[in-house]
Amino acid sequence: MENLIAFNRGVPPAESFPKEQIIESARNVIIKEGDQILQYGSSLGYPPLREWIATQFGSQIEQVIIGQGSLQLLDTFIKTSLNPGDHIFIEQPVYDRVLTLFNRAGIKIIGFKLHNGSMDIEEIETALKNGIIPKAFYVIPDFQNPSGAEMQGGFRIRLVELAREFKFILIEDGAYRHLRYHGQDLPRLYDLDPGHVLHMSSFSKMISPGIRVGFMVGKNEIISKLAKYAEETYINASYINQAIIHDFIFRDLMDDHIEFLKRIYSDRLESILSALNSQMNEFGTWIKPDGGFFTGVFLANGKKQPDPRSQKENGLMLMDSRGFFIEGGENFMRLPFCALTPRQINEGITRLVRLL
Amino acid sequence: MENLIAFNRGVPPAESFPKEQIIESARNVIIKEGDQILQYGSSLGYPPLREWIATQFGSQIEQVIIGQGSLQLLDTFIKTSLNPGDHIFIEQPVYDRVLTLFNRAGIKIIGFKLHNGSMDIEEIETALKNGIIPKAFYVIPDFQNPSGAEMQGGFRIRLVELAREFKFILIEDGAYRHLRYHGQDLPRLYDLDPGHVLHMSSFSKMISPGIRVGFMVGKNEIISKLAKYAEETYINASYINQAIIHDFIFRDLMDDHIEFLKRIYSDRLESILSALNSQMNEFGTWIKPDGGFFTGVFLANGKKQPDPRSQKENGLMLMDSRGFFIEGGENFMRLPFCALTPRQINEGITRLVRLL
Repeated sequence: MENLIAFNRGVPPAESFPKEQIIESARNVIIKEGDQILQYGSSLGYPPLREWIATQFGSQIEQVIIGQGSLQLLDTFIKTSLNPGDHIFIEQPVYDRVLTLFNRAGIKIIGFKLHNGSMDIEEIETALKNGIIPKAFYVIPDFQNPSGAEMQGGFRIRLVELAREFKFILIEDGAYRHLRYHGQDLPRLYDLDPGHVLHMSSFSKMISPGIRVGFMVGKNEIISKLAKYAEETYINASYINQAIIHDFIFRDLMDDHIEFLKRIYSDRLESILSALNSQMNEFGTWIKPDGGFFTGVFLANGKKQPDPRSQKENGLMLMDSRGFFIEGGENFMRLPFCALTPRQINEGITRLVRLL
Repeated sequence: MENLIAFNRGVPPAESFPKEQIIESARNVIIKEGDQILQYGSSLGYPPLREWIATQFGSQIEQVIIGQGSLQLLDTFIKTSLNPGDHIFIEQPVYDRVLTLFNRAGIKIIGFKLHNGSMDIEEIETALKNGIIPKAFYVIPDFQNPSGAEMQGGFRIRLVELAREFKFILIEDGAYRHLRYHGQDLPRLYDLDPGHVLHMSSFSKMISPGIRVGFMVGKNEIISKLAKYAEETYINASYINQAIIHDFIFRDLMDDHIEFLKRIYSDRLESILSALNSQMNEFGTWIKPDGGFFTGVFLANGKKQPDPRSQKENGLMLMDSRGFFIEGGENFMRLPFCALTPRQINEGITRLVRLL
């Protein structure tokens, strides 16, 4: 079988990394600020980048914490603001690593299914009115991992109203928000009600995952608990990495770089949608995303994701889709399209369809 | 009052950071390996640096994990190998951040006092024979934080024998080991019995704390549990930072750099010992360390560390010494000497003595 086609991980392709600019930024920041950034620092993160993030969110700098990726900050939120037995709401399917963290912490997880890319707001209201009030509701409104779904504007407004009425925190994961290939931005949940939203995001999909810089923006009381726990646990995340991101932004490289990413990725989105459209119709339905890294196929007629052995024999690798679900999940397949060339995508879908 | 003299934190001075070499290493590794190190990676860490560390310890690469500083790895060890209510043994005084982590995890902590720089082995044996068997015993054998004490060779051998007999893990924190200004290296506990020792260390004191690269070397079963928990929590620590360290080492810069650090720091050690000797004799005793960052003064006659207000009024800042103890600690003062010039050290001790 010719080269393996890896649909398993949602990672950016190596050709997207702005290597020369990162080298230049590393040089700039160590020359200018080496005394500070090579030293220990506050667990809240490198102040100039926090300041920039605060500006993007219309928040105070005290409301921003930067860490080693946003996942660790979410874990720290769980450790500082949730207790075993607390309820949390999630979408189904959901980002698998988040499900692992909530499970590990002994949180009771209630899932709401995506129907054609949207949860049913009435199902959520019913649960709340029946007295199941979560501490938090984790969502990826923009180009969800793993389905590619985008939360519609009206739904965002209703969800924020519910958070206000029933006093829970919306955890808004914005990792893919800036990678929109079509259409217009919808408001962030954070913009709709900063008092009830904890926004998390990172530079992993915009610059590089290996630089490990993620952040959270939220209420002072949440962020200061995060900062205390973070300091006790790891003192601070590396300011070198954070200063590189800041220098990259302040040399005005970010907008052009994102445009460059969008050019690569929107071609790949076209390729996968066209391959699915010509080959997958009889087997299931999928979301046609306007951005992000993923589309997900919901298989029809009881069809299941091929098992790992058949995948391997046919030169394919998929993530075990059960990881995205509290239970079940065999009838779903996540298809990340950004790290594959159009040719690989087409060949990959052909191989996949052969197995269904 | 003239400039504040900060005896409060055990940090390297900015003039010790090899900035030009770090810039050069960052450039080298991003050019050569940017595709890999700017991507996500295994939570165990950047393989070439793990391989080098394994060589230093005569271990297998599978026994090495690299993280965002060694403190976070210790916290991960606590979360994966200890349970609330477990006992752990420590020296008294002890590194304050470690005490915080054990306390946070609900661990029962038993302390053994340093008498003239050494715990009493019989006290430890008595506790063990009375049935108090710890899961682990955390020690800094080389130039302890906060006292500067060095564990003697015979004591090391006895301690390892006890670990073997009573089946507990020795957690050996080697953060200062390579900064020896006089005398000969004593064997690492790890060298005496790799099966009962978990060694932790970092490049914070050798290259830069801000680069946030620490590691642990230990038994496969411990390291693989760490790796799983680490992956779930933060995927991986930045390989960029780890690759920079590796490049620095493989350009053969480490030995010269450590010699440079020793030249600066041993002058500062001389200064503090001479200032203490001429001014502190009537107030207490202290350890004359052969390396590391610290000496600690054990005050006599019920004298206490000056309170924060008097410190401030006299242009001094000390760490609250109670943080180094399970209880008490007012009669101790930690004096880090590496980040102060000889003139500052002398003036600092003069100010301090004035307050006693």
